[in-house]
Amino acid sequence: MVGSLLASATPEQKCTAPDMVGYDEAQALLAACMQNIPLLPIEFVSIAQADGRILAEDVRAVMPRPEADISAMDGYAFRCADMEKAGNTGLPLAGQIAAGDTPPPLGQDVAYGILTGARLPVGADCVVAQERASIMDGRVHLREQTARSGLNVRRKGEEFCKGDMLLEHGQKLDWRHLPVLVHQGKKQVAVYKRPKICVVANGAEFGATATDCRTELNTQLLAAMLQSKGALVTRYVCGSDSAEDLHKLLYQCVQEADILITTGGISVGQTDHVLSVLNQMGAKCLFRRVKIRPGKPMTVMQLGQKMVFCLPGNPAAAAICAQLFVVPFLHCLVDEKYEANASIATEGQSRFSYVAATDTTCFLPVHFTENKGENSISLVPSVGASDILCLTRATGFVKVSAGETLQVGDMCQMIPFTS
Amino acid sequence: MVGSLLASATPEQKCTAPDMVGYDEAQALLAACMQNIPLLPIEFVSIAQADGRILAEDVRAVMPRPEADISAMDGYAFRCADMEKAGNTGLPLAGQIAAGDTPPPLGQDVAYGILTGARLPVGADCVVAQERASIMDGRVHLREQTARSGLNVRRKGEEFCKGDMLLEHGQKLDWRHLPVLVHQGKKQVAVYKRPKICVVANGAEFGATATDCRTELNTQLLAAMLQSKGALVTRYVCGSDSAEDLHKLLYQCVQEADILITTGGISVGQTDHVLSVLNQMGAKCLFRRVKIRPGKPMTVMQLGQKMVFCLPGNPAAAAICAQLFVVPFLHCLVDEKYEANASIATEGQSRFSYVAATDTTCFLPVHFTENKGENSISLVPSVGASDILCLTRATGFVKVSAGETLQVGDMCQMIPFTS
Repeated sequence: MVGSLLASATPEQKCTAPDMVGYDEAQALLAACMQNIPLLPIEFVSIAQADGRILAEDVRAVMPRPEADISAMDGYAFRCADMEKAGNTGLPLAGQIAAGDTPPPLGQDVAYGILTGARLPVGADCVVAQERASIMDGRVHLREQTARSGLNVRRKGEEFCKGDMLLEHGQKLDWRHLPVLVHQGKKQVAVYKRPKICVVANGAEFGATATDCRTELNTQLLAAMLQSKGALVTRYVCGSDSAEDLHKLLYQCVQEADILITTGGISVGQTDHVLSVLNQMGAKCLFRRVKIRPGKPMTVMQLGQKMVFCLPGNPAAAAICAQLFVVPFLHCLVDEKYEANASIATEGQSRFSYVAATDTTCFLPVHFTENKGENSISLVPSVGASDILCLTRATGFVKVSAGETLQVGDMCQMIPFTS
Repeated sequence: MVGSLLASATPEQKCTAPDMVGYDEAQALLAACMQNIPLLPIEFVSIAQADGRILAEDVRAVMPRPEADISAMDGYAFRCADMEKAGNTGLPLAGQIAAGDTPPPLGQDVAYGILTGARLPVGADCVVAQERASIMDGRVHLREQTARSGLNVRRKGEEFCKGDMLLEHGQKLDWRHLPVLVHQGKKQVAVYKRPKICVVANGAEFGATATDCRTELNTQLLAAMLQSKGALVTRYVCGSDSAEDLHKLLYQCVQEADILITTGGISVGQTDHVLSVLNQMGAKCLFRRVKIRPGKPMTVMQLGQKMVFCLPGNPAAAAICAQLFVVPFLHCLVDEKYEANASIATEGQSRFSYVAATDTTCFLPVHFTENKGENSISLVPSVGASDILCLTRATGFVKVSAGETLQVGDMCQMIPFTS
């Protein structure tokens, strides 16, 4: 037990910025602030390393696909008119063409053996599948009269032509995109650098000498969440209630990270030094406290061009506030405009009712199910902002705006926790 | 150009296993085979490394949450009856309790200052928020008559009790699960080892001396896809048409990997050595060719307890076959039973019609959209099995079984490409 813990807020703890703002106002303040935050720098990575990264260039086709007329089959290539003219005598087999070969132009009245993916000789306009032809005395004979111009030929550029837009700037790359980059002969691709984030928890209860078993949940939770969004995250715990220790740690974090995230230590108690220390470091408050549940203490500050997100200490509140404010911010660092994460929401019919208080926008953990193409959203029971188990049972969360009522059967939007 | 490429299949190339099986039969053969394949071994990793891994143990609560009655507020803790009795005279402030402290039992007729998350002294049954009380002459006075037993107290075990099932074996861990593991005091957690996969492409067209620009797309595609499913993947390219070179490479791969995946080289051409080389190595064929489009050449072999998936060489066919056969197999290595990946499908109303040939089950690239809680599935135009661009435009694929017709407005199931 320490001395008087419940003193009134010190002057430094106060924040001249808007206090206790509505949810929409908080988002608007963050969106306005984003206009002065530069996009992340660009780096070049190999194709094998590009999986999961955000593309920082438009990729237009420098070569078509296929690059030439190629065979779609193992078979025989010839000029249709030649075969028609030859009739039952067939066409002499002039050679074999494999994928990767550059065959000479087709002579008059001859056929070539050809493998799938191999280039047609210039002049050939048709491929008959191996099993529909036979070889007698070195000549190709058709078993059926199936040849027609274009048969089994993949035309140059039929998939895409030179100059076509293939992948657009801002695309998150996954396995589906890598073949396009490889095909275009790219050894490296421009992607946005991963933002560096420091996540800091603080409090004597996390110190080596703490008597109670208060393990540090939030930095693990936030690091894994933000890493899944592409960030490089370092976790720190300041295991004391000393403002000086916290100052030292936060100063170090600002040197090494692009974005600073704190969790806990922003309430009115005497051990809540986060805001006052950041004030001393020159951070300006964007907003202080938001009329939301969970997450009322949520505060955003700015230190030069670096953002500082001060999240609540309760884990579910920290998780939801990170999703509401940090994740859209990260998205905005690789895009031109800020938008709250409604853009990734999935709609469904509510299976529960909820009445939000007139002044508080509520975020509720929910479970999403789909049946026969119709989506349902059910409430996950929770004991509140501290609940860690409800997060594991929920697929996302639903917003009920201040003063609004959600009824059973209403359409509502779930923001998925993982996407 | 090489010699005669279109010879009939050599004896080794032939496969005594079922040839040209139906889709359901292929899945049934694979499911039956899984009964003899052991689960992946278990390893222990730190909580920070557990993100994305598959839990290999049930996690039951060894301690409740909260671990004791704790305060949900910064405020004052006391026994309700004491405060009622005291009335306007209030209760003397006997000390301060911070998170991590172990306070002594509550004396008669006293109050304590208490911070959020701190343990209540035994005997205290209520916390009044700081702003609803005042301190005069060292005594706590309520501003309003709001105290009642249980107010702002989070009861021991209200989130979960000792013995409760928290996380079940087989759970894929993400940020939502890490706080539970940390809370339970776990430093390490049992997860399944990541399966080691070698992905092998082969063909002279990928060799250093190839004249055409045939870059190697498939191993990049498959490596990224299977890594996203938790596998450790090594890519290899055998840049020649020599069966001996291929044998050497595949032999090496079998030594180092749990699962072998080949792409291309399983058609009827003379340069298609994959199956004959695997036969020579002692692999037994589970099935050879499947009545599906794309992906007809798809073949599965077994080499001891190691599976060998021989995928087609066309990229879209390789991608779809990997999703149809390899991904469910990987899932099965950490679960008791094999099921085709319909379990992860999402239903929606078809916006297109399609007639499958009587003997061919078709898999079509589609785009999934959701509007007002109703899901729609549209066809993505494709030029066929070689199409790499259609993959980037599609969110998944839809199955139309042999002989069936999908009509506009029918419900259909999309299997998502990334999930």
